[in-house]
Amino acid sequence: MIDPAVPVPTTLARASVAIGPSLDAAVDRLDPSLHEPVRHHLAGGGKHVRAGLVLLGARAVDGREEDAYCGAVAIELVHNYSLLHDDIIDGDRERRHRPTVWVRYGEGVAIVCGDALAALAMQVLFDDPSPTRIRAGALLADANQAMIAGQSADMAFEHRPRVTVDECLAMERSKTGALLGAAAAIGAILGGGDDGTVNALGAYGEHLGIAFQAIDDVLGIWGDPNVTGKPVGADLLARKKTLPVAVAMASDDGTAAELEEILSRELGTDDVARASRLIEASGAREAVAGIADDHLKQALGALERAALDDAAKEELVSVAYYVTARDK
Amino acid sequence: MIDPAVPVPTTLARASVAIGPSLDAAVDRLDPSLHEPVRHHLAGGGKHVRAGLVLLGARAVDGREEDAYCGAVAIELVHNYSLLHDDIIDGDRERRHRPTVWVRYGEGVAIVCGDALAALAMQVLFDDPSPTRIRAGALLADANQAMIAGQSADMAFEHRPRVTVDECLAMERSKTGALLGAAAAIGAILGGGDDGTVNALGAYGEHLGIAFQAIDDVLGIWGDPNVTGKPVGADLLARKKTLPVAVAMASDDGTAAELEEILSRELGTDDVARASRLIEASGAREAVAGIADDHLKQALGALERAALDDAAKEELVSVAYYVTARDK
Repeated sequence: MIDPAVPVPTTLARASVAIGPSLDAAVDRLDPSLHEPVRHHLAGGGKHVRAGLVLLGARAVDGREEDAYCGAVAIELVHNYSLLHDDIIDGDRERRHRPTVWVRYGEGVAIVCGDALAALAMQVLFDDPSPTRIRAGALLADANQAMIAGQSADMAFEHRPRVTVDECLAMERSKTGALLGAAAAIGAILGGGDDGTVNALGAYGEHLGIAFQAIDDVLGIWGDPNVTGKPVGADLLARKKTLPVAVAMASDDGTAAELEEILSRELGTDDVARASRLIEASGAREAVAGIADDHLKQALGALERAALDDAAKEELVSVAYYVTARDK
Repeated sequence: MIDPAVPVPTTLARASVAIGPSLDAAVDRLDPSLHEPVRHHLAGGGKHVRAGLVLLGARAVDGREEDAYCGAVAIELVHNYSLLHDDIIDGDRERRHRPTVWVRYGEGVAIVCGDALAALAMQVLFDDPSPTRIRAGALLADANQAMIAGQSADMAFEHRPRVTVDECLAMERSKTGALLGAAAAIGAILGGGDDGTVNALGAYGEHLGIAFQAIDDVLGIWGDPNVTGKPVGADLLARKKTLPVAVAMASDDGTAAELEEILSRELGTDDVARASRLIEASGAREAVAGIADDHLKQALGALERAALDDAAKEELVSVAYYVTARDK
């Protein structure tokens, strides 16, 4: 989904290798019956954006990356537990071109693996309960709860005829923004940053998460199936009330009623095409791109509110462009 | 499942009321979309044995019950998240004579509700991160992981032809003993107890959990359906390798092979009857009752290893008898 023309920021590219041994050591602590399914899931790879943000957060406050490894591992564990559970909830059979854990090992195993990774995240931070780790743990627990709230709201939207743009944005802030914000903030905490800097980095990550999600929503309707690996109009097929739908439904003409009617029942291929045309004609596609752009600007603006290490800041800027520059 | 002839220990009887406001306040923090399903689950009641043990643990070390409310709430949240997820995994459609959350609201909602309660348990302890709360949080995270390991091992056993008695006991120690042990220990921690007392109370709870589980295993095969609310031989129908099965399989005669053969495929009513007769004839039913009795004695013995408040200790003894005195 990432535009291959935009180079991978250095820290992101090596985050996986940097925290690999710590992550492996954490997974080794799990019950042996969980090793195979958990490793099957983790071997799928991923971009390690969240781990990279933790490491950059630490460097941005002149801290040592090594002091933030525990936070990077904990964040990746929380992210991956949510993927394991979301794949069951969404009925997704493949992730990164491999069978998801629930498909390969059964739903029960996937539920328990997710629970284990969530608990492990806390254990990793509690290993050496220094004041900074406790603060990081508290922030991670809050971000986890926010992420869950976002996931729950997202599910609830599917059963509602309409959602407002504000409701949808609040959902995406929780679902995606909270954990990205926590990643950068936890890095700053573990690196020894002051409150102002921690908050600024948290705001950077949160806005970046919203921008990322808004673009993901556009790709969920108009993305190229060869690039996204999902069918055309995947989100519409799943009747998800994402941002483009919410924006289109806010328009004054007849779009809202027509869209509501289409999304009120199982959609065929024709319905998907009609809904996506309707949404596009309402101007919602451009509007959502604008929302993404606005949050990208706010993410970059947050970096200006703190005194950060120059090199780390430069990388945080490039991470923001990298994460939001995705194939149309 | 509890023998009505054994009176409910005072603290257990009022634990639910004592921590009710704190538990409600915690649930209020969840996303509104989760309130109804979570409250549907919690309204089912339950015996609040774990909350009671936390309060008694605090009083046993001359601490104030109020200081342990946060721990009692956190323990109940962890216990209830595991019930929500286990009901999905086991396909249980009813709990306490009411539809389970996954049946009533869907699997996705039940998964997310469980995740939310697990995260909330940590948030409750992090609210005021005093050293004792942090210690309690670390112990709870470890107990949660142990409980997950036990659940995972239990599931893995279903796919294996045999399990040893030691494997089965280790599974039950994790699955049931860990959280009961953590309950009593966390109470002692929050009440200001010293390490020796915390460990003794932890051992008490852990052995009590094993004794409880062993009796539960006996009821899972020979329990009266009118009392258990489950079909005759429920655990055999589900091909669970519980303690009576493991003990019977350890016998030298032909029992193991015959039992292994019966449990290798879907069981009809005749198979269940034959398997339970085989297990009983091997002496495994009495042996497991003996194991339960042994762990009950070890639980009571652990109480003798610490200097505890007399009244609280007396109640801990009666909780042990109450929890293990169940209808045959």
